[in-house]
Amino acid sequence: MCKAIVYVTLRESVLDPQGQAVKGALHTLGFDEVNEVRIGKYMEVMLDSADRAQAEERVKEMCEKLLANTVIEDYRFEIVEG
Amino acid sequence: MCKAIVYVTLRESVLDPQGQAVKGALHTLGFDEVNEVRIGKYMEVMLDSADRAQAEERVKEMCEKLLANTVIEDYRFEIVEG
Repeated sequence: MCKAIVYVTLRESVLDPQGQAVKGALHTLGFDEVNEVRIGKYMEVMLDSADRAQAEERVKEMCEKLLANTVIEDYRFEIVEG
Repeated sequence: MCKAIVYVTLRESVLDPQGQAVKGALHTLGFDEVNEVRIGKYMEVMLDSADRAQAEERVKEMCEKLLANTVIEDYRFEIVEG
Protein backbone atom coordinates (compact mmCIF):
# COMPACT_ATOMS: atom_id res chain seq x y z
CA MET A 1 0.00 0.00 0.00
CA CYS A 2 1.22 3.49 -0.86
CA LYS A 3 -0.32 6.84 -0.05
CA ALA A 4 0.31 9.79 -2.36
CA ILE A 5 -0.32 13.36 -1.20
CA VAL A 6 -1.08 15.57 -4.22
CA TYR A 7 -1.13 19.38 -4.19
CA VAL A 8 -2.74 21.17 -7.13
CA THR A 9 -2.45 24.96 -7.20
CA LEU A 10 -3.26 27.65 -9.71
CA ARG A 11 -0.23 29.02 -11.53
CA GLU A 12 1.05 32.32 -10.15
CA SER A 13 -0.01 34.14 -13.34
CA VAL A 14 -3.61 32.91 -13.08
CA LEU A 15 -6.21 35.03 -11.26
CA ASP A 16 -7.71 33.29 -8.20
CA PRO A 17 -11.29 34.62 -7.76
CA GLN A 18 -11.99 32.11 -5.01
CA GLY A 19 -8.94 33.28 -3.10
CA GLN A 20 -10.00 36.90 -3.53
CA ALA A 21 -13.49 36.10 -2.24
CA VAL A 22 -12.03 34.44 0.85
CA LYS A 23 -9.69 37.40 1.38
CA GLY A 24 -12.67 39.76 1.25
CA ALA A 25 -14.58 37.63 3.75
CA LEU A 26 -11.58 37.54 6.10
CA HIS A 27 -11.33 41.33 5.92
CA THR A 28 -15.03 41.59 6.72
CA LEU A 29 -14.40 39.44 9.80
CA GLY A 30 -11.66 41.84 10.89
CA PHE A 31 -8.56 39.99 9.70
CA ASP A 32 -7.09 43.06 7.99
CA GLU A 33 -3.55 41.68 8.09
CA VAL A 34 -4.42 39.25 5.29
CA ASN A 35 -2.71 40.39 2.10
CA GLU A 36 -3.50 37.55 -0.26
CA VAL A 37 -5.16 34.13 -0.29
CA ARG A 38 -4.45 31.41 -2.87
CA ILE A 39 -6.63 28.29 -2.82
CA GLY A 40 -5.76 24.88 -4.29
CA LYS A 41 -6.62 21.21 -3.93
CA TYR A 42 -5.12 18.74 -1.49
CA MET A 43 -5.67 15.08 -2.35
CA GLU A 44 -4.79 11.84 -0.63
CA VAL A 45 -4.67 8.91 -3.04
CA MET A 46 -4.37 5.42 -1.56
CA LEU A 47 -2.72 3.02 -4.00
CA ASP A 48 -2.53 -0.74 -4.03
CA SER A 49 1.12 -0.87 -5.11
CA ALA A 50 4.21 -1.55 -3.02
CA ASP A 51 6.71 -0.36 -5.65
CA ARG A 52 7.46 3.26 -4.83
CA ALA A 53 9.05 4.14 -8.18
CA GLN A 54 6.13 2.67 -10.09
CA ALA A 55 3.67 4.50 -7.81
CA GLU A 56 5.44 7.81 -8.53
CA GLU A 57 5.24 7.18 -12.27
CA ARG A 58 1.53 6.34 -12.08
CA VAL A 59 0.64 9.32 -9.83
CA LYS A 60 2.42 11.64 -12.27
CA GLU A 61 0.27 10.16 -15.05
CA MET A 62 -2.88 10.62 -12.93
CA CYS A 63 -2.01 14.28 -12.39
CA GLU A 64 -1.30 14.88 -16.08
CA LYS A 65 -4.49 13.12 -17.21
CA LEU A 66 -7.05 14.04 -14.56
CA LEU A 67 -6.07 15.54 -11.21
CA ALA A 68 -4.60 18.78 -12.54
CA ASN A 69 -5.51 21.03 -15.44
CA THR A 70 -1.92 21.59 -16.54
CA VAL A 71 -2.89 24.62 -18.67
CA ILE A 72 -3.65 26.73 -15.59
CA GLU A 73 -2.53 24.59 -12.66
CA ASP A 74 0.73 23.29 -11.24
CA TYR A 75 0.91 20.01 -9.31
CA ARG A 76 3.37 18.33 -7.01
CA PHE A 77 3.06 15.17 -4.97
CA GLU A 78 4.87 13.02 -2.43
CA ILE A 79 4.61 9.31 -1.75
CA VAL A 80 4.37 9.04 2.03
CA GLU A 81 3.95 5.38 2.87
CA GLY A 82 4.77 1.93 1.44
CA MET B 1 5.38 39.19 6.26
CA CYS B 2 4.25 35.65 7.16
CA LYS B 3 2.86 32.93 4.95
CA ALA B 4 0.51 30.34 6.43
CA ILE B 5 -0.18 27.05 4.64
CA VAL B 6 -3.60 25.73 5.66
CA TYR B 7 -4.90 22.20 5.00
CA VAL B 8 -8.61 21.55 5.38
CA THR B 9 -9.79 17.95 5.03
CA LEU B 10 -13.03 16.13 5.63
CA ARG B 11 -13.13 14.14 8.86
CA GLU B 12 -12.45 10.42 8.41
CA SER B 13 -16.05 9.59 9.37
CA VAL B 14 -17.50 11.89 6.69
CA LEU B 15 -18.34 10.51 3.24
CA ASP B 16 -16.32 12.14 0.43
CA PRO B 17 -18.49 12.03 -2.74
CA GLN B 18 -15.99 14.17 -4.64
CA GLY B 19 -13.21 11.75 -3.77
CA GLN B 20 -15.35 8.81 -4.86
CA ALA B 21 -16.12 10.51 -8.19
CA VAL B 22 -12.40 11.07 -8.82
CA LYS B 23 -11.67 7.45 -7.87
CA GLY B 24 -14.25 6.28 -10.40
CA ALA B 25 -12.77 8.49 -13.10
CA LEU B 26 -9.26 7.20 -12.35
CA HIS B 27 -10.53 3.63 -12.65
CA THR B 28 -12.13 4.49 -15.99
CA LEU B 29 -8.74 5.79 -17.14
CA GLY B 30 -7.17 2.47 -16.19
CA PHE B 31 -5.67 3.33 -12.78
CA ASP B 32 -7.14 0.28 -11.09
CA GLU B 33 -4.56 0.35 -8.27
CA VAL B 34 -6.36 3.34 -6.73
CA ASN B 35 -8.15 2.22 -3.57
CA GLU B 36 -9.41 5.50 -2.20
CA VAL B 37 -9.24 9.26 -2.89
CA ARG B 38 -9.84 11.95 -0.26
CA ILE B 39 -10.00 15.56 -1.44
CA GLY B 40 -9.46 18.67 0.69
CA LYS B 41 -8.45 22.31 0.41
CA TYR B 42 -4.94 23.71 0.37
CA MET B 43 -4.68 27.44 1.10
CA GLU B 44 -1.80 29.87 1.17
CA VAL B 45 -2.57 32.95 3.27
CA MET B 46 -0.10 35.85 3.10
CA LEU B 47 -0.19 37.91 6.30
CA ASP B 48 1.15 41.34 7.07
CA SER B 49 2.46 40.40 10.52
CA ALA B 50 6.04 39.66 11.60
CA ASP B 51 5.10 38.14 14.97
CA ARG B 52 4.93 34.40 14.42
CA ALA B 53 3.04 33.57 17.63
CA GLN B 54 0.44 36.21 16.90
CA ALA B 55 0.12 34.99 13.31
CA GLU B 56 -0.50 31.44 14.57
CA GLU B 57 -3.22 32.67 16.92
CA ARG B 58 -4.91 34.67 14.18
CA VAL B 59 -4.74 31.85 11.56
CA LYS B 60 -6.32 29.50 14.10
CA GLU B 61 -9.14 32.02 14.50
CA MET B 62 -9.51 32.32 10.70
CA CYS B 63 -9.83 28.54 10.42
CA GLU B 64 -12.37 28.33 13.22
CA LYS B 65 -14.47 31.20 11.84
CA LEU B 66 -14.26 30.80 8.09
CA LEU B 67 -11.70 28.56 6.41
CA ALA B 68 -12.94 25.27 7.86
CA ASN B 69 -16.39 23.94 8.68
CA THR B 70 -15.33 22.38 11.98
CA VAL B 71 -18.49 20.25 12.15
CA ILE B 72 -17.34 18.05 9.26
CA GLU B 73 -13.79 19.20 8.56
CA ASP B 74 -10.42 19.09 10.29
CA TYR B 75 -7.79 21.76 9.72
CA ARG B 76 -4.09 22.14 10.34
CA PHE B 77 -1.67 24.84 9.31
CA GLU B 78 1.98 25.83 9.37
CA ILE B 79 3.58 29.26 9.33
CA VAL B 80 6.36 28.99 6.78
CA GLU B 81 7.98 32.43 6.55
CA GLY B 82 8.46 35.55 8.69
